[in-house]
Amino acid sequence: MTSLKSEKVFRDPILGFIHVDNSVILDLINSHEMQRLRRIKHLGVANLVFHGGEQSRFQHSLGVYEISRRMIDALDHNKQLFNEKKWEHQNDLLVQAAALLHDVGHGAYSHTFEHLFNTVHEQFTQKIITDPSTEVNAILRRVSKDFPAKVAAVIGKTYPDKRVVQLISSQLDADRMDYLLRDAYYTGAEYGRYDIERILRLIRPVKDGFAFDIAGVHSIEDYVISRYQMYLQVYFHPVSRGMEVVLENLLMRAQELFDQNPDNPIFFQLLKPIFSLKNKIDVQDYIALDDSVFNTAFNIWQNADDPVLADLAKRFLDRKPLKSMVLNAQTKPLLADIKQKIVALGFDPKYYTGENDATDLPYESYSPKTGEEGIKFVYPNGEQAELSQLSPLVAAINGKESIDRRFFFPRELLADKEVNDLYLKYKKTY
Amino acid sequence: MTSLKSEKVFRDPILGFIHVDNSVILDLINSHEMQRLRRIKHLGVANLVFHGGEQSRFQHSLGVYEISRRMIDALDHNKQLFNEKKWEHQNDLLVQAAALLHDVGHGAYSHTFEHLFNTVHEQFTQKIITDPSTEVNAILRRVSKDFPAKVAAVIGKTYPDKRVVQLISSQLDADRMDYLLRDAYYTGAEYGRYDIERILRLIRPVKDGFAFDIAGVHSIEDYVISRYQMYLQVYFHPVSRGMEVVLENLLMRAQELFDQNPDNPIFFQLLKPIFSLKNKIDVQDYIALDDSVFNTAFNIWQNADDPVLADLAKRFLDRKPLKSMVLNAQTKPLLADIKQKIVALGFDPKYYTGENDATDLPYESYSPKTGEEGIKFVYPNGEQAELSQLSPLVAAINGKESIDRRFFFPRELLADKEVNDLYLKYKKTY
Amino acid sequence: MTSLKSEKVFRDPILGFIHVDNSVILDLINSHEMQRLRRIKHLGVANLVFHGGEQSRFQHSLGVYEISRRMIDALDHNKQLFNEKKWEHQNDLLVQAAALLHDVGHGAYSHTFEHLFNTVHEQFTQKIITDPSTEVNAILRRVSKDFPAKVAAVIGKTYPDKRVVQLISSQLDADRMDYLLRDAYYTGAEYGRYDIERILRLIRPVKDGFAFDIAGVHSIEDYVISRYQMYLQVYFHPVSRGMEVVLENLLMRAQELFDQNPDNPIFFQLLKPIFSLKNKIDVQDYIALDDSVFNTAFNIWQNADDPVLADLAKRFLDRKPLKSMVLNAQTKPLLADIKQKIVALGFDPKYYTGENDATDLPYESYSPKTGEEGIKFVYPNGEQAELSQLSPLVAAINGKESIDRRFFFPRELLADKEVNDLYLKYKKTY
Amino acid sequence: MTSLKSEKVFRDPILGFIHVDNSVILDLINSHEMQRLRRIKHLGVANLVFHGGEQSRFQHSLGVYEISRRMIDALDHNKQLFNEKKWEHQNDLLVQAAALLHDVGHGAYSHTFEHLFNTVHEQFTQKIITDPSTEVNAILRRVSKDFPAKVAAVIGKTYPDKRVVQLISSQLDADRMDYLLRDAYYTGAEYGRYDIERILRLIRPVKDGFAFDIAGVHSIEDYVISRYQMYLQVYFHPVSRGMEVVLENLLMRAQELFDQNPDNPIFFQLLKPIFSLKNKIDVQDYIALDDSVFNTAFNIWQNADDPVLADLAKRFLDRKPLKSMVLNAQTKPLLADIKQKIVALGFDPKYYTGENDATDLPYESYSPKTGEEGIKFVYPNGEQAELSQLSPLVAAINGKESIDRRFFFPRELLADKEVNDLYLKYKKTY
Repeated sequence: MTSLKSEKVFRDPILGFIHVDNSVILDLINSHEMQRLRRIKHLGVANLVFHGGEQSRFQHSLGVYEISRRMIDALDHNKQLFNEKKWEHQNDLLVQAAALLHDVGHGAYSHTFEHLFNTVHEQFTQKIITDPSTEVNAILRRVSKDFPAKVAAVIGKTYPDKRVVQLISSQLDADRMDYLLRDAYYTGAEYGRYDIERILRLIRPVKDGFAFDIAGVHSIEDYVISRYQMYLQVYFHPVSRGMEVVLENLLMRAQELFDQNPDNPIFFQLLKPIFSLKNKIDVQDYIALDDSVFNTAFNIWQNADDPVLADLAKRFLDRKPLKSMVLNAQTKPLLADIKQKIVALGFDPKYYTGENDATDLPYESYSPKTGEEGIKFVYPNGEQAELSQLSPLVAAINGKESIDRRFFFPRELLADKEVNDLYLKYKKTY
Repeated sequence: MTSLKSEKVFRDPILGFIHVDNSVILDLINSHEMQRLRRIKHLGVANLVFHGGEQSRFQHSLGVYEISRRMIDALDHNKQLFNEKKWEHQNDLLVQAAALLHDVGHGAYSHTFEHLFNTVHEQFTQKIITDPSTEVNAILRRVSKDFPAKVAAVIGKTYPDKRVVQLISSQLDADRMDYLLRDAYYTGAEYGRYDIERILRLIRPVKDGFAFDIAGVHSIEDYVISRYQMYLQVYFHPVSRGMEVVLENLLMRAQELFDQNPDNPIFFQLLKPIFSLKNKIDVQDYIALDDSVFNTAFNIWQNADDPVLADLAKRFLDRKPLKSMVLNAQTKPLLADIKQKIVALGFDPKYYTGENDATDLPYESYSPKTGEEGIKFVYPNGEQAELSQLSPLVAAINGKESIDRRFFFPRELLADKEVNDLYLKYKKTY
Repeated sequence: MTSLKSEKVFRDPILGFIHVDNSVILDLINSHEMQRLRRIKHLGVANLVFHGGEQSRFQHSLGVYEISRRMIDALDHNKQLFNEKKWEHQNDLLVQAAALLHDVGHGAYSHTFEHLFNTVHEQFTQKIITDPSTEVNAILRRVSKDFPAKVAAVIGKTYPDKRVVQLISSQLDADRMDYLLRDAYYTGAEYGRYDIERILRLIRPVKDGFAFDIAGVHSIEDYVISRYQMYLQVYFHPVSRGMEVVLENLLMRAQELFDQNPDNPIFFQLLKPIFSLKNKIDVQDYIALDDSVFNTAFNIWQNADDPVLADLAKRFLDRKPLKSMVLNAQTKPLLADIKQKIVALGFDPKYYTGENDATDLPYESYSPKTGEEGIKFVYPNGEQAELSQLSPLVAAINGKESIDRRFFFPRELLADKEVNDLYLKYKKTY
Repeated sequence: MTSLKSEKVFRDPILGFIHVDNSVILDLINSHEMQRLRRIKHLGVANLVFHGGEQSRFQHSLGVYEISRRMIDALDHNKQLFNEKKWEHQNDLLVQAAALLHDVGHGAYSHTFEHLFNTVHEQFTQKIITDPSTEVNAILRRVSKDFPAKVAAVIGKTYPDKRVVQLISSQLDADRMDYLLRDAYYTGAEYGRYDIERILRLIRPVKDGFAFDIAGVHSIEDYVISRYQMYLQVYFHPVSRGMEVVLENLLMRAQELFDQNPDNPIFFQLLKPIFSLKNKIDVQDYIALDDSVFNTAFNIWQNADDPVLADLAKRFLDRKPLKSMVLNAQTKPLLADIKQKIVALGFDPKYYTGENDATDLPYESYSPKTGEEGIKFVYPNGEQAELSQLSPLVAAINGKESIDRRFFFPRELLADKEVNDLYLKYKKTY
């Protein structure tokens, strides 16, 4: 019914080909809401540090879809080894649609955006899927009246069949499997590589989800460590965070100016709903926002009358990050002094400093918060074991949050010798 | 004087690292005008066909700089083999600055943009370099008063030392060497790969430029063929050209509306100079334009009152290419009829059709137009020979322009069986 | 019946995994005759030039099997597009067994060996398959009494179903597809790479064989050119051929000594049958020969009483190739003089010179000799076209044999200035 | 004096090119003793599990040389950052020669060989370097009379300048850096990859050796973990060890037969010195041994009168590994029973079983045994820190030996259900 006459493929540098043989998937890919993701960078501002990292959320979404499709194929291919639980094909389209759409509600420059406007991209993802005004919703409704709600439930982790949810959202899900490989490929950071072909070969259907053949312990250990290293080296990079703080302070200043005068002509029409309504913004107005809209705003604002707005906009466009030092017992007591010096240099610390925490929980054998379990392995005799019990490396990071707290300040402050010495000691860039 | 305390590197997925040890180069990279290239995609609209191809002109520029640096190193390293002509290091910075800046005047969605607004990006490159209002110019003037003019002359091919010009602009220059590898890497098309390390090893300084050791014939044959295949498979792709025609017609319609009423609020301030002044636009106004500005314009225009503008803007943003067939002796006579049918469907052919030629001259042993010569090889005894005399493959494409002429029309027309049959026969997608 | 309980895989650096799910294939892999191929290098002596090229015929055989398996999968997957001819699965095992065994009769240092002992490896392949004394034969007989004969017929190209033969033996067969990728990977020569994944995607079953979707023209053009370049750069390399001539003269001298005295203790038992019986050697005695046996013979012979045998054995083991110049109208008339000089240096030209032709026919649109046809493409409307009509590059090499004729002589001769000048002019190493 | 007229390069699939510009290095590469390493596989018998792993000790030696050369270049390039200790170029050739020759004394099937004949390859390496009968020694003496002794001292770690020793022999030396990349590339195991380019960029000369810029913590953490994983997944593989036990028992049986009758014709001349003299073997007789000699012996022995020798030789050539289970508190007490069953099956446990320990110490912050220190990092202010203090992953494996103890037995025993159940429980193949 929904299968295409001939399979359609998309050339992908990471996965070779993305294969589509279902017209629902193809129509979703071609929808207004999915095409918008071409204009949102996957890494936010990290492309300003890793100049290769220009990949879009659109291509990542195709990748997550493709990996979910391969996981299903592998589960199906490997099912005969375990008679307890086979893979039910009636869920294939549900999994694949959820995989493809899992990021459809991402905002421009996403995390900064969310923080400032108090939006949650997961909620907008669900709204876009279930709101009858969207193309995505109309396409999903062709499958069945309740299909949009089902897809939204899978993404929201409330769908009753845990096996379906686990493919899209777990410690070894299609989302993570794609972004590690993709971000490593585009940034040129070697860390994110792991042996996806072997992992897919060793996946096994079990009760309530999937597990892996015991032979895969080291391949999956390698995946967990790759992810850990990508966080420390790429996602936590202090220079991108220095750009994020610029962006955050810039938008904060814009909000203040908007609140003073919503008719200020520096706010063109597309921008007004988000500044005035924030997370109550209408779905269609939200969809109209992408990285380009904000870049254009900054382009205009760099010539604005407000000197702080203009300066921060120019710093962002011209990639002039704030510098940083680690926040710890030694540096914290000095912040008041440092801010004094910043003021003395003519900068308002409100707009020219910031604190920023980068945190990641690299692996959890069991999450007390969500009840989510760790990655499981199956022995030939059917017994199971969890990864951190099998790998001393994973055990070493199990449940331990990686945290990097930093204080950001203008580069101009480094002319002060005292601050510069402190900076050299506490910049900590590994 | 201008050398950095410690070398600065940029991680690059294609070249490993970009090495910078000269403060002039580093300051140019950090300049306002170079940072703008981060917001201009290298492939124009081809990322709408090859979803991986999101690379910016900024990273390509870094790559061209790095390859020019490696070419100089190789020429220097290999110079002892030929006593006639050594490499003069006083030109190093000139070559590297020209390599880095060679694309700094590129416009948004470049080729379409140039065609419509009658601009030439090479001219804007030279203006940005020589105009005292730019950061790039100020940085170059630090080297010497006439340095900006020299860099501009190298890029404009009027610089008297041909050896310097040849590194930046010839049939095997740093520009082409970078974009083939980079475009292949990001699009996932395998064709663009060739053995750059071996080619660099075999480069030799000769009178008036560089040549290659005779041992490199097949490596360079492979490079020429790679380039030929990238043109046919990536750069000529009929679907991207279907998007280019949409873009061209969209901007043409916008120009008409602007000419009717320059105060129409759909033209925000950043857009006005280019629509009113075209190639007479001021350098600073030109620099303010990037892909984001146009994307934002299209975003606004999709809700414009003018139905043609709104529809074309939406088609562009949502990636709805025009379909195409090859223009040849069989199809040309049918165009009048086809246009009739397009009118019957309610589309104005002026905005919904287009003709588009893609042409490439893959190799020329000698260009009668420019006097430029082919790629030369040196035998152990000092004799030289030109590539097409050594390679039957290159001889087969020498001087023969690849041309692909097409007529573009709305997909809706394929509902007409007669047109559809014609389309199946003449779509020719290899 | 013959399917394995669980699929067995072999990690392969070129193809990812080799997948085996049939016990006949697994048993063939584990057989005495196939395991012997681990001790025969795929490239003969070319590893003496490309030090990475140590790959065995065993791994190449696994690769050919795996590619044949993927071709069948692709034909099966793509068959619905053409209703005329589907893929018949009853031939799967026949194709896969023939692919795996196609080289099982290869001799040590194969081409030199064949030339000298007048053996033909294809005949020994067929003998090993059909001779009841072999493990391979016993395994194949488990399928059916006539299965060994069928497999031998496929390899010998006499099997009536041309579709089966074409997969194993044609201008784009599993054999060539594997060795190009594998030899490129191990030698580090970049030329052999082509886009196998895309080619497999575009393969289509047609009457009497397979063809390709018209969209694949450039991918297959790239494959043909890759093969052409690998021949010129790797397989024709004058230095490996300088080692082949040493090997040939060494074995020729050994044969003379054997003929003089078959009981000379330098011929240990394993060697006697081949020196005395040549191509009439018994299958089991033939199978006992591998690269190691000959290496050990050379190891012993380097201390033999015969000075020519000892010297040539040492030259071979220590990689001291003969030097060479191209044989052409200019050099041929000088050979008599050169040989005089060789004699004057104390070398017998019979053992210290040689002529060697390297030839390759890179592509034939039609072979008048065998009736074999070129690579075919299918248009959407079902029409077919042949590659050289679609690609000007392939047309340029179609039917034109690449030939490199050389005269080989001892390096010691280069002390003669006249010879050295000639050598510098005619060594031609590209 | 010793520099070549023009640089010579060797194409290498892992390192791109091996560069040689010193005639001493080139002559060493071409020497009899180095060329012998072409006939010794780097991985011993592991190519019988990873069919791609055919790489020779020769190519590994070239790789170690090349990496040592790049380390020196990097130390030299980075030296200006630290004024305390520059790199002294008078040691360049010493380092490079030691790197190239570090494995020249390796025996055939090395570890098994050493164990059985009580030889130590490091001693033979030093003998080959210092014994006046070798080509290597003659070449080294051209540099200076004491140069062979110096090179031997570097390899033996007794050379007084610790900086020189550390490049060849430490926890991050040229040897390990090469074999990880090379073994990963050839076997297709992904684990061994790490970012060598970045590590070389961050190397810094310090007092008594080299350290790394603090920015390199994660790159080197990745290298240490890669090495740890290669040990567990490739070097410890139970199936290769099952082949090693076959080889060991085979050679043990051959020794018994030799001791009974040294004139037994199954021992051809090349083999006699090692069986009779063991570690007292003459250097030239030792050099005459390579993998081929032993393969040929096995080839002959498979038809020997002694049934154990013949059977084990055939098992080795045809790759029939012994099966294994982990030796632990549960399995140890059962060995006596198992051996009874083996006897009942007609096998002598002396020749058909074996115990084999695989051990690796993945990292040591300080070795109490050798006084060797861990990998050091330098902060911008000059302070140093050791890797395990900076990386929780490395801390997790610091000083902890990985051990895998196994008992090996004939596959035929698995017909016994009790043993088979035990096997399924304790085969532990991850």
